[in-house]
Formats: sequence, structure tokens, C-alpha cells
Amino acid sequence: MTHRVEIHYCTQCRWLLRAAWMAQELLGTFDEIGELVLRPGTGGVFEVHADGERVWSRKEEGRFPEITELKQRVRDRIAPERHLGHADRKGEAG
Amino acid sequence: MTHRVEIHYCTQCRWLLRAAWMAQELLGTFDEIGELVLRPGTGGVFEVHADGERVWSRKEEGRFPEITELKQRVRDRIAPERHLGHADRKGEAG
Repeated sequence: MTHRVEIHYCTQCRWLLRAAWMAQELLGTFDEIGELVLRPGTGGVFEVHADGERVWSRKEEGRFPEITELKQRVRDRIAPERHLGHADRKGEAG
Repeated sequence: MTHRVEIHYCTQCRWLLRAAWMAQELLGTFDEIGELVLRPGTGGVFEVHADGERVWSRKEEGRFPEITELKQRVRDRIAPERHLGHADRKGEAG
């Protein structure tokens, strides 16, 4: 089964490269991902969805995710059995 | 109107970062793009689709595109009125 992850980012804020970096981090970590969608937006948006569920919102959290915690949240949604290595605290983001 | 561009790349060939680089080049150039999809694949695939039309196939062309010619082909499909600057030869890829 493949999964869809989407990164919705604000172009006015110049977050493209940040979003692209996170995209390749996620793709390099999860071979469960079938589609990684980069979606340009406006108004300070920075959200990540995994299979339609929002796993990060900068407006709600008040900050960007560390890449490790973003991977945990995506993992919890698309590959809950996976362990992510030494920085992993499974279920922390659940 | 927004457009969808998809980059289908071989993970076994380690083309993820190349694909991600092209993704951010296209997103930085075309605000007409509503979704830029990175799609992992196998078997040496490297294809780019714009609105469902294949605009590059490494197997057919025998090589990767220069970023300028990839932009021309995407432009011809999604924003034919756009001029891409000094390296542009409009319609060359048409």
C-alpha cells in the first residue's frame, strides 16, 4: 500500500526550499510514500498532511517541526510499526 | 487555473535529490503550478508529466534534461505565453 504526503507551504514567506528539503527527507526515510506533493500557498501556511490527516500546522504549533518530530508524526500515520532510529520516541507525537 | 506537474524518479538509481532539485526549480519558476508531485519509482524511470502529458522521458531521450529545457517543456504545456529569460528558445521543445 502506498501513501500520500502533502506539504503546503507559503511562497511569500520563501519557504519553498525548506519544504523541498523536508520532502526529500521524508521520501528518503519512508519507502511507504507513493506521492509526495509540494503545494504552494500563501498567508503564512505551513502544513503537512499524511493520507489526508493533518500532522503538522505551523499556525497551531507556533513553530516549524524538527525533522525528527515531523518524521515521527508521518510515521505514526503511515508506518506505525517503523522505528526511526536513535532520535525516535515512538508515540510521542501520537 | 492551477496545474499539476509530476516527477517520477528511480530510487534505486539514487535520483531523489536530483528530482527534488528539479521540483524546487519548477516551483520557483512557475507560480502556475498548484501541485508538484514527487513519485518514487524503480527500474531506471525518470519521467516528468505536466497536466498528465509526458514532457520528458529519460528512456526516450537517452539522457536527463537540462533544467532550462525541462522548464521550456513544462512551460509549453502549462504557461505557453511565458518567456523564460535569456536561455529560452520558445517553442524549441514544442
